Amino acid sequence: MPLVRISVRQGKSAEYRKALGDGVHQAMIEAMAVPPDDKFQVITEHPAEGLVYPPQYLGVPHSDSIVFVQITLSTGRKPQQKRKLYKRMAEILVATADLNPRDLIINLVEVSWENWSFGLGEGQYMKD
Amino acid sequence: MPLVRISVRQGKSAEYRKALGDGVHQAMIEAMAVPPDDKFQVITEHPAEGLVYPPQYLGVPHSDSIVFVQITLSTGRKPQQKRKLYKRMAEILVATADLNPRDLIINLVEVSWENWSFGLGEGQYMKD
Amino acid sequence: MPLVRISVRQGKSAEYRKALGDGVHQAMIEAMAVPPDDKFQVITEHPAEGLVYPPQYLGVPHSDSIVFVQITLSTGRKPQQKRKLYKRMAEILVATADLNPRDLIINLVEVSWENWSFGLGEGQYMKD
Repeated sequence: MPLVRISVRQGKSAEYRKALGDGVHQAMIEAMAVPPDDKFQVITEHPAEGLVYPPQYLGVPHSDSIVFVQITLSTGRKPQQKRKLYKRMAEILVATADLNPRDLIINLVEVSWENWSFGLGEGQYMKD
Repeated sequence: MPLVRISVRQGKSAEYRKALGDGVHQAMIEAMAVPPDDKFQVITEHPAEGLVYPPQYLGVPHSDSIVFVQITLSTGRKPQQKRKLYKRMAEILVATADLNPRDLIINLVEVSWENWSFGLGEGQYMKD
Repeated sequence: MPLVRISVRQGKSAEYRKALGDGVHQAMIEAMAVPPDDKFQVITEHPAEGLVYPPQYLGVPHSDSIVFVQITLSTGRKPQQKRKLYKRMAEILVATADLNPRDLIINLVEVSWENWSFGLGEGQYMKD
């Protein structure tokens, strides 16, 4: 049920962007029991002036390799699951995409379970 | 008050994308009484690696023609209105854009009514 | 903690888009005490058919120079802060980007404070 938007700077390879998407998904599987088949992502590239970030925030410096991951998902995850998600996503992307963990920005947007349709015009998560 | 983001694969015509936007809007008019003039949409095209979807999820198979429709709207719609929205959107887009209903993914993000400004720096939906 | 998405028509300069981003951020600093270093933005350009708007809504006419500003931020801002944000953003962008205030559309998406990671795989805003 997550819909993921990943935003990166132009100039990296398609393989790199695929590794980002795969790693984000793997972290959601491990931390939040998201079904493996539940993988819907929009991955976009942006020119320098299209991806704006500060030199540092909260003491964490950032580089041009910064990655924004915005995940819309259904409500109900506990704080410890979110904490695990952040940690695992960083660990996985360091290993598989050579990402500096300083450059991983994550945001979760929570919505009701009834707020999804996965085809056929049906609300598959709605109670009858 | 909805802000709609529609994401599709590259290579379809501008007419096709317009038909998608028009159909999504028509469904919101019919199912949720959205005013006809309240039509704000961002429609984006993506390369193959930029629009990621599973071969199937919840038993519904998907193709390269998959369409993600993410609608930010104000709170208060009842479940039956959401259900009607999903159903009507699929019906309309099958008829007007030749979309396979399996390829229509919809997500709603609900926000407070006060969270909008429609120009002039005013919060038109805010109570005084 | 805000993540800002700014969507505009193709054909304006990079300087113009930078002025938009800077003005949106300045308004958040003034109206909501957002830290100056907390500046994360995705600014995108769209062809005519990719940025859809009505000729007018709520009596406010719009032009091709319309700007959508969608801000994901943590909950807790009071209505008067939101009102000030809308007003200041319009004032600033009129002055610095020559934007017609009729063309400024703003939407806020509020999320929990725990829904952010600003690098290092940590949830910097989470309580321990």
